[in-house]
Amino acid sequence: MGENIPREYPATVPHHHPFDPIRPDEISLATTILKASFPGVNLRFKVIDVKEPIKKDVIPYIEAERTGQPLSPPPPRLLFSYLHRLDTHAFLKAVINVDTKAVISLKELPSHIQGPVDVDEMIGLETVCLQHPRVIEEIAKLQLPEGVTVCTDPWIYGTDDENEHRRLVQFYMFIVPVDHPQSNHYSLPCTFSPVLDANTGELVRIDYLPTGGDHSTTETQPWKPVKAVEYAHDLIETPLRQDLKPLIVQQPEGPSFSLDGQLVQWQKWRFRVGFNYREGLVLYNLTFDGRNVFYRLSLSEMTVPYGDPRRPFHRKQAFDVGDVGLGITCNQLSLGCDCLGHIKYFDGFRIDSQGRPVHLRNVICLHEQDAGILHKHTNYRNGQATVVRNRQLVVQMICTVSNYEYIFAWVLDQAGGVEFETRATGIMSTIPIDDDKGLDLPFSTPVGPGVSAPFHQHIFNLRIDPAIDGFNNTVVYEDSVPLVPEEHGIDDPYGVGYVARTTVLDRAGFSDTNVELGRVFKIRNDSVINAISRKPVAYKVQTVASQRMIMSSRSFNARRARFHEHPVWVTRYQDDELFAAGEFTNQSRESTGVDKWAARGDDILDKDVVFWHTFALTHNPRTEDFPVMPVEKLSVHFKPSGFHEKNPALDVPSSQQAVNKSTLVEEAAKAACCN
Amino acid sequence: MGENIPREYPATVPHHHPFDPIRPDEISLATTILKASFPGVNLRFKVIDVKEPIKKDVIPYIEAERTGQPLSPPPPRLLFSYLHRLDTHAFLKAVINVDTKAVISLKELPSHIQGPVDVDEMIGLETVCLQHPRVIEEIAKLQLPEGVTVCTDPWIYGTDDENEHRRLVQFYMFIVPVDHPQSNHYSLPCTFSPVLDANTGELVRIDYLPTGGDHSTTETQPWKPVKAVEYAHDLIETPLRQDLKPLIVQQPEGPSFSLDGQLVQWQKWRFRVGFNYREGLVLYNLTFDGRNVFYRLSLSEMTVPYGDPRRPFHRKQAFDVGDVGLGITCNQLSLGCDCLGHIKYFDGFRIDSQGRPVHLRNVICLHEQDAGILHKHTNYRNGQATVVRNRQLVVQMICTVSNYEYIFAWVLDQAGGVEFETRATGIMSTIPIDDDKGLDLPFSTPVGPGVSAPFHQHIFNLRIDPAIDGFNNTVVYEDSVPLVPEEHGIDDPYGVGYVARTTVLDRAGFSDTNVELGRVFKIRNDSVINAISRKPVAYKVQTVASQRMIMSSRSFNARRARFHEHPVWVTRYQDDELFAAGEFTNQSRESTGVDKWAARGDDILDKDVVFWHTFALTHNPRTEDFPVMPVEKLSVHFKPSGFHEKNPALDVPSSQQAVNKSTLVEEAAKAACCN
Repeated sequence: MGENIPREYPATVPHHHPFDPIRPDEISLATTILKASFPGVNLRFKVIDVKEPIKKDVIPYIEAERTGQPLSPPPPRLLFSYLHRLDTHAFLKAVINVDTKAVISLKELPSHIQGPVDVDEMIGLETVCLQHPRVIEEIAKLQLPEGVTVCTDPWIYGTDDENEHRRLVQFYMFIVPVDHPQSNHYSLPCTFSPVLDANTGELVRIDYLPTGGDHSTTETQPWKPVKAVEYAHDLIETPLRQDLKPLIVQQPEGPSFSLDGQLVQWQKWRFRVGFNYREGLVLYNLTFDGRNVFYRLSLSEMTVPYGDPRRPFHRKQAFDVGDVGLGITCNQLSLGCDCLGHIKYFDGFRIDSQGRPVHLRNVICLHEQDAGILHKHTNYRNGQATVVRNRQLVVQMICTVSNYEYIFAWVLDQAGGVEFETRATGIMSTIPIDDDKGLDLPFSTPVGPGVSAPFHQHIFNLRIDPAIDGFNNTVVYEDSVPLVPEEHGIDDPYGVGYVARTTVLDRAGFSDTNVELGRVFKIRNDSVINAISRKPVAYKVQTVASQRMIMSSRSFNARRARFHEHPVWVTRYQDDELFAAGEFTNQSRESTGVDKWAARGDDILDKDVVFWHTFALTHNPRTEDFPVMPVEKLSVHFKPSGFHEKNPALDVPSSQQAVNKSTLVEEAAKAACCN
Repeated sequence: MGENIPREYPATVPHHHPFDPIRPDEISLATTILKASFPGVNLRFKVIDVKEPIKKDVIPYIEAERTGQPLSPPPPRLLFSYLHRLDTHAFLKAVINVDTKAVISLKELPSHIQGPVDVDEMIGLETVCLQHPRVIEEIAKLQLPEGVTVCTDPWIYGTDDENEHRRLVQFYMFIVPVDHPQSNHYSLPCTFSPVLDANTGELVRIDYLPTGGDHSTTETQPWKPVKAVEYAHDLIETPLRQDLKPLIVQQPEGPSFSLDGQLVQWQKWRFRVGFNYREGLVLYNLTFDGRNVFYRLSLSEMTVPYGDPRRPFHRKQAFDVGDVGLGITCNQLSLGCDCLGHIKYFDGFRIDSQGRPVHLRNVICLHEQDAGILHKHTNYRNGQATVVRNRQLVVQMICTVSNYEYIFAWVLDQAGGVEFETRATGIMSTIPIDDDKGLDLPFSTPVGPGVSAPFHQHIFNLRIDPAIDGFNNTVVYEDSVPLVPEEHGIDDPYGVGYVARTTVLDRAGFSDTNVELGRVFKIRNDSVINAISRKPVAYKVQTVASQRMIMSSRSFNARRARFHEHPVWVTRYQDDELFAAGEFTNQSRESTGVDKWAARGDDILDKDVVFWHTFALTHNPRTEDFPVMPVEKLSVHFKPSGFHEKNPALDVPSSQQAVNKSTLVEEAAKAACCN
C-alpha cells in the first residue's frame, strides 16, 4: 500500500475547481490538521475525501463558467474524514476547510455506527484470520495435500441482531488448489467460516456452513480432492479458440473529445469527471449545447441480498457503495484490455490508514465508440439516403468487490441522450454443497463439483440531480391511456384514440413503474417552454422496470435498504443527502436514506429536486455464469423530450465510406488470394 | 424495376439447400409453369417465393449435415405464388414443385381477401393518383408557387367496414418545397387524401383531413408557405459539426467468420441466412458447438396502430410484414455507411408484376463488432486480471416503409447468446394541424410549423422455432418468490429465503410477463440433463415487458392483431403457421394467426413447439424525433441457461494491447506535438 506520489504532481495546488477530486497535497494537509487536533493521540484514518461543495454556493460559480461571465471566488473547499482514536476506540467524523486550514466540525459517532471497511483493514484482517491458532487448527483438519493451501475473503458481516455493536467480519475460506495468481479458489469453498472482531482482532467464533437441505452443519472433515473449475487461460484444459481475428479501432486524427483537467468537451456536451472513494465515478455539471442538463450523476448505492436462508448465509447482504466504496475497489485499467481506440485515463487518490495519499492510476477511462446507426432515412422514390452513425462517449469504471465485478459506464450520445450502463460479471459468491446425495437446494444452482451459487439480487440506486435548463425542476409521469370522448371533447367511434395522461408529483415521495400503462417519467422545467411542442422543456427517464427485493419486509435486508421498495423516489435537494441507504450502511439496522428524506413530503413543484431510480437484477445463477460470468447488462436512459425543437444531431456528418474505410469481404478475400 | 440478372449467376442451379432463398432461375421456371397453366389468360404476378420446406422432411437432412452423415436427398423444393387473373380479377395462390415442374395446388381465394401490396402496384398507383383529374384539380387549389410541387405516399387503407371488399389505397399528399432528392415533404402534409380502388384505378373519394380538435374538415385552401423542417445536409441551415474525428474498424487478418453460400460459421455458431419477400431476413438451423439451438428465427409480424381517432386517421394501422413485406422494403446497403469493418452482403430476389426476377443487391449485411467486455475478473490480492472482449456477429437488414425505417439485427455472441435488436428510426408519419389557435391535440405532438406527429405503437412479434438439443422442447416460466418453510422443509427465521417457482406450459396457449415476480421464460429439453445443474438443458428468453395495444378490444386494430394481447404465445408446430396475424393482413377484419393456433390447446409437453414473443414500443413523439428520429432500441435476448456445464466462452483469448493496438490519448497528443 502507500504507493509513491508521482513526482510530476504539484506539491501544492493553489486553486481547485469545486468539482475536482481530492489531491495528494490536500490529503497531507488534512492529515496534518487532524493530527494536530489530537496531540499525543494515535489516530487511524479510514477516509479523507472531498466533501461535496454547498450547492447554493457553487451554482453561481458554474453558471458564470457556462455563460462566460467573470468567475466569482469558488465556494469553500471542504474535506471530510472518518477516523478512529486508537486510545478510546471512538469513531469520528471531521470536516475541514482547506482554505482556512481549520477543522470546522468534529463529532464522535454513536457506538452502534460502523464506518466502511478500508483497504488496510481488509488486508490486515486477512492476515490476522489466517494466522489465528484456531483457524490454523481448523485448516489442519482439511489434511490438504502438498501444494494446496487455503485463502480467505473477508466479508461484510451483515446484520441479524439489533444489539450487536461490535465491528464484525465474516471470513469465507477457500482452498487454493494450485499456486497460480488466478487459481479459482471460489470453486472450492470450505465449510467453516471464522468471525473476527475487526477492532480487537479477536476470534469471536467459527461458523460451520450448512451443506445440505437444512441448517445442520458438520465438523470440518478432511478435504476430498475435486477439480476446481478454472477460468485462467493457463489453467483451463480446452485449447483457446484459434478463429478470433483482431479487430482494431483506429482514430487517425485522434479522439473527438478535448480535455482540460477534469473537464471534458465532446459533441456539444461539456462536463466534469469527478471521483471519490465511495461512489467512484461521478459526473458533474453536464451541459449540452451550452444548456444545463444535469448537476450531478452518480450510482448512489447498491445492495446484494442473498436468498439462502441457512445460517450464516442469511446475513449475506453487501452494500458495495456504502460498506466499502466503489472508488477504492476500482480496477487500475490497462490500455487495450478494457476499451478499444484512443483512451484517456483519469487517476484518483485514496488514503492509507496512516492518512497518507495512495495513488490510484487509471481508475476511470474515457473513450469513444461506434454504436451502429443513430438515424437513417431513405427516400424510397430515388434511393437517396441520409445515414448518421451513433458515435458515443463512454466514461467507465470497473470495480472488483472480492469475487465479483461491476462495470459501470455513463454513455453520452450526439443527440443529447445519456445512458447509465451496468454490467455484472466476475465470479459469483459460492457455497459448499454435499453433491453426492441428489441434493436440490431450491435457492441455489450447482455450478461445479461440491460447489453451488446461491440466488441473489443486485439492487442499484442511481442518484440523478437534474438541472433541466435550470436548477428548479418538476417531476411528472405520463401514462398512455385510452382517450375518453367526454373528457377530451372528441368522438372516437372506432375505439382507437389514446392520450398521454400526466401526473405531476407535487410532494416528495415515491412512485412506481407501470408497464401496462407505458409509464414514462419526465423531469421538466416549467419556466421554459419549447416553441414547437408548446410544452415545458423536459428530459424523459427510461426507467428499468424490475423486481423489488424478494425478502420479507420485516427482514433486516429489506429494512436496511428501503430504497428497494420503489423504483422512483423524488426528494427536495438538501446538501449531504447523497446515499440511498444513508451515510453508514455497514452493519446498519435500518435505512437512514432516501426513504426518510422523501417522507418529509417537501413541496417539489418547480424546486431543486433529486430523482432517485432503483433498479434490480434478480440473479438465479446459470451454470454458464461459472467460473466467470458473461456480462449481464442493465441500462437506464435519459433522453431529451421536448428539450430541443428538433433532432439535435441533424448536424452530425453522414456516414461515408471515404471516412469509415470498411472492407468488402469478397474484395479482402480476393486480395488475400492474390498475395 | 426489373434490373438485370448478374451475368455470373448460374442460369440453372442443379441443387439447392432446402433453406436457400429463391433464385432467378426458379422464378423464371415458376412464371413459365404458371403461364402455361392459364393459356390465353393475362396474369399479374404479386409474389413468387420459396415455400417453407416441410419440417419433418428437412430434419433428417439437416441432422445428417450436423452429424456428418451421408446426406439423403433434400426434401422437395416448393415455391408459391400470389397472382391475379386479369380476366376475372380472381386472386389466386399456387404451389409449385420445382423438382417435378408441376403445379401441385392452385386455389382461388375468397373475394374479401386482399394480397399484399407489391412494388409495381405501389409505384403504378402513385402515378394514377397524381394524374387523376380530380386530384390535379385539388392540387391546383393549393396555388403553389413556382418550383413547389406535390407528391404522394400510398398508404395501406386499413379497415373500418366489415363489408368493404374493394382493394383500396389511401393516398396521403405532401408538398415538396424544393427540387432535391431528400427534400422532407413529410414536414408539409396536405389536408386532402384521395382514396383509389387499386384494381380499377378509380378514384373512390377524396378524404379531407381534420386539422383541429374534432372531426371537422375544410375545403382545400391556398397553401400558406411555411418552412419545411429538413434533414438533408444540403438543406439544413446549421453548419455540420467539425469536431467528429474518423473512427475506423480494421481487421487486418480479415473477419472471424467463414462462408459457404448462405452458410455462416463463426465462433462455434453455424447457421444459414435465409431471405424471403415477406420476413426479409430469416436465420435457419442455428447450432452452437455442434448442438442444435434454433430451427428458425424470424420477425413474423408487426403492426403500427395510430392513436388519432379522427377520420380517416382511425384507419391508420400498418402491418409492415404482412401488408407489404420486409424483404421488398429492404434497403440496398452501402459499404461504410450502414456497418463498420469487414462486411459481407447477401443479395435477394423478388419478382416484378410480369413474374420476372428483380435482383436486390446487398439487402442483408453480416459483420463483426466489439461490444465492450464479455467477462472480467481481477484477483484483488495480486491485481492479475482475465479480460475477454465481447466480439459479436451482426446479421442486419434495414427496411424503409414509406416514411419510416426499421433496423433489424440478429446479434450472436461468443457465449451462446442471441439478441434480436430492433431500432426504429426514419421519419414519423405526420398530419397537418392548425397551429395558430393554441391547439393541443392530446394524441399528437407538434413537430414543426403546421405539422404534428400522432401517437402510435409499434407492436412486433418474433417467431422462435426452437431446437434446444433436439426438436422436441418444453416451455416453462420461473418466478422468483419467497421461500415457504412448510413447502421447502427448511426454516427461514430471518425471512430472507427465496426460490424459483417453475410453471410448465403443458397446453398451447399464451402467457404473460410479470415484472413483480421476475418471471423468466425458458425453453428446455427434458430429455437432456445437464450433469452439473442436474436439470434439463435450456435457453432462457429475456422477454421485453411492454404495454399492450391501447386501442379498445372491439376496435378493428385490436381484432386484426390479436397477437398483441399477450407477450408470449406457445403453439405446437404445424407447417404453414408462420405469421402472427395470419397469412393475409391487408384490409383483414380479424386475425387468422397465432391466437387461433394457440386456441387449439395442443399438448405441448416435450413436443415440437413454437414460441412467439410480442413486444411493443409506445411512441408518443418527441420534438427531437423530427425530422428524422434518433434510434429507439428494443432487444430480446436468448441465453443458454443450464445448456452448458460452464461458461462456454472460457476459451476466448484474452483482450491484449498487442492485438487491440489502442492508443493512450496523452501519447497521441505528444506524437502530434512532435510532428
